Amino acid sequence: MAPVTNGRVLFNEYLPTGYPIPGKTVVYDTSETIDLENVALNGGFLVKVLVLSIDPYQRNRLKAPSDQRSYGSFELGKPIQNFGVGVVLRSENSAVKAGDHVYGQYDFQQYVIVPELPSRIWRVLENKEQIPWSAYVGVAGMPGQTAYYGWKEYASPQKGEVAFVTTGAGPVGATVIQLAKADGLKVIASAGSDDKVEYMKSIGADVAFNYKTTKTSDVLAKEGPIHVFWDNVGGESFEAAIEHAATGARLLECGMITVYNTNETYTVKNLFQIIGKELHVHGVMVAGPLHEKYVDEFYETIPEKIARGELKYKEHVLHGLDKAGQGLLDVQTGKNFGKCVIVVAEE
Amino acid sequence: MAPVTNGRVLFNEYLPTGYPIPGKTVVYDTSETIDLENVALNGGFLVKVLVLSIDPYQRNRLKAPSDQRSYGSFELGKPIQNFGVGVVLRSENSAVKAGDHVYGQYDFQQYVIVPELPSRIWRVLENKEQIPWSAYVGVAGMPGQTAYYGWKEYASPQKGEVAFVTTGAGPVGATVIQLAKADGLKVIASAGSDDKVEYMKSIGADVAFNYKTTKTSDVLAKEGPIHVFWDNVGGESFEAAIEHAATGARLLECGMITVYNTNETYTVKNLFQIIGKELHVHGVMVAGPLHEKYVDEFYETIPEKIARGELKYKEHVLHGLDKAGQGLLDVQTGKNFGKCVIVVAEE
Repeated sequence: MAPVTNGRVLFNEYLPTGYPIPGKTVVYDTSETIDLENVALNGGFLVKVLVLSIDPYQRNRLKAPSDQRSYGSFELGKPIQNFGVGVVLRSENSAVKAGDHVYGQYDFQQYVIVPELPSRIWRVLENKEQIPWSAYVGVAGMPGQTAYYGWKEYASPQKGEVAFVTTGAGPVGATVIQLAKADGLKVIASAGSDDKVEYMKSIGADVAFNYKTTKTSDVLAKEGPIHVFWDNVGGESFEAAIEHAATGARLLECGMITVYNTNETYTVKNLFQIIGKELHVHGVMVAGPLHEKYVDEFYETIPEKIARGELKYKEHVLHGLDKAGQGLLDVQTGKNFGKCVIVVAEE
Repeated sequence: MAPVTNGRVLFNEYLPTGYPIPGKTVVYDTSETIDLENVALNGGFLVKVLVLSIDPYQRNRLKAPSDQRSYGSFELGKPIQNFGVGVVLRSENSAVKAGDHVYGQYDFQQYVIVPELPSRIWRVLENKEQIPWSAYVGVAGMPGQTAYYGWKEYASPQKGEVAFVTTGAGPVGATVIQLAKADGLKVIASAGSDDKVEYMKSIGADVAFNYKTTKTSDVLAKEGPIHVFWDNVGGESFEAAIEHAATGARLLECGMITVYNTNETYTVKNLFQIIGKELHVHGVMVAGPLHEKYVDEFYETIPEKIARGELKYKEHVLHGLDKAGQGLLDVQTGKNFGKCVIVVAEE
């Protein structure tokens, strides 16, 4: 078989502030080819990438190393990276065989040679529940893990308490809404459009509102105080949550999308209340010790719940790796409705 | 015996911002008398107040109820309140007898009739260790409890880790320094004068500096990253701690003196790092569940450590209840060097 094109999404320039521009911040490149039958694997395995995930946190990796705090910059001229699922075409690694479906952090390419299973993040997916592969980068992947690990470790939910979830129509927030409902909490959830509000109600939110037309602090004043806060927004939203937190409330900081594209300029004017209300603020990251602690439990329970229809999810699907730049932009502006997934190839 | 003067410190006017002004914010009043032998106790007990504590958090109680977040305003025209130790002159309460020394939250008066032991905060002090009564409002009282409870509950200290303690010459900070050293941590501590720096070194701080002449972030960049932060300052100090926190660090928010006298105007520009570094921020209050959990352990261990000289403390003593207004000002401006104590009477 002749070599085939191996399309790639390359990181083209650092973006200190502002939204990513498709074709400028990242570019789709078709200059490389790959000989699928003969390319040397050197003990690794060759994957045909099926789906790739676009997530808000990737915005931080578009910044220069000098502006980085935590995630590490993408390398200029090289493919950007994120979680995905692919099917193994050939393997020289005993842990993986042709036909296996592997979840991991892939370069944004149509075909990837993986030297080895690099970390506990990577996983050969059995999928005996037969849910769609795309679910494994969403509710059954990193965003679902983020929600599950953070909720299990820090929420300390008590039946009858009140939770407030921001970006409740996104894959993390929507999962948190459902976990909170399952634990018997009253759930307040916000998102940025009326159809997202309807969706949040459909998955169980007791109170759902559009933060663009309704003031968060007004809703919390009426429906709070809140005992658990799941924050994907930061800034004014964090301030409103502190203002309407009950004594001893748990504030789970998972994302601050309001500060990803600008510098952090909002003055949170009530940090002092962290003391008086004895609040607990926790930064939630999916990698690290929480992953070690919860990953097996996660894969044992979540795909099954999805298969049974007990855990719902919604996707914003873009077809073709060349749409990755658009996806990066969509999740920063909130244009996506549900988990943003790039379908790179059918099996 | 004829009635005697019962001097009182009355709350005279609300103070939204700025430093308390002795004689204006609070006034010392000698218009009342009390007949110690005959005054009706109605089932309560009569206390001659020996020592009263002045603490930074009292600044918040000088604000109007509409500006309150947590502590509750003092009542205009009535005595201000805080922790103290007094000796019982007469009692109709079976839990307390004449001659007992009682720790509790007293009105700022020379003599107080207490209807009953109002809460678990109050305590008849055995003092078999024979430490000075004033210690029971400092290192063996609320400030010491604050340090002890917060440290035990949230610090999760690991030998070899690094702690950073602000206002390390104050009663809370100085206790935290000694607890951290006892747990095998390297301790960085800051205060606002060179003699306080020397004192912090004398009680075990490995690195001590004057934040007025040395930049906190410079010290932390050199001596950090930090694993435990004890904050009595807020604002820029909180920001510096976040900036130089290790992954998984615990930030114990105990006070924010920089925002007590002004509104909260400082923009903490790196709250986002709470996520990436998986930080844990806890508000520490001495009352509430932590008190229930640790109070007996505290009184069983701390006075003994003080008596043995294993736990050191320093006092800023003012003689006479009429000096309370000055004390309030001193602890806000940092003029005090050590725990501010008003000696109201000798036994």
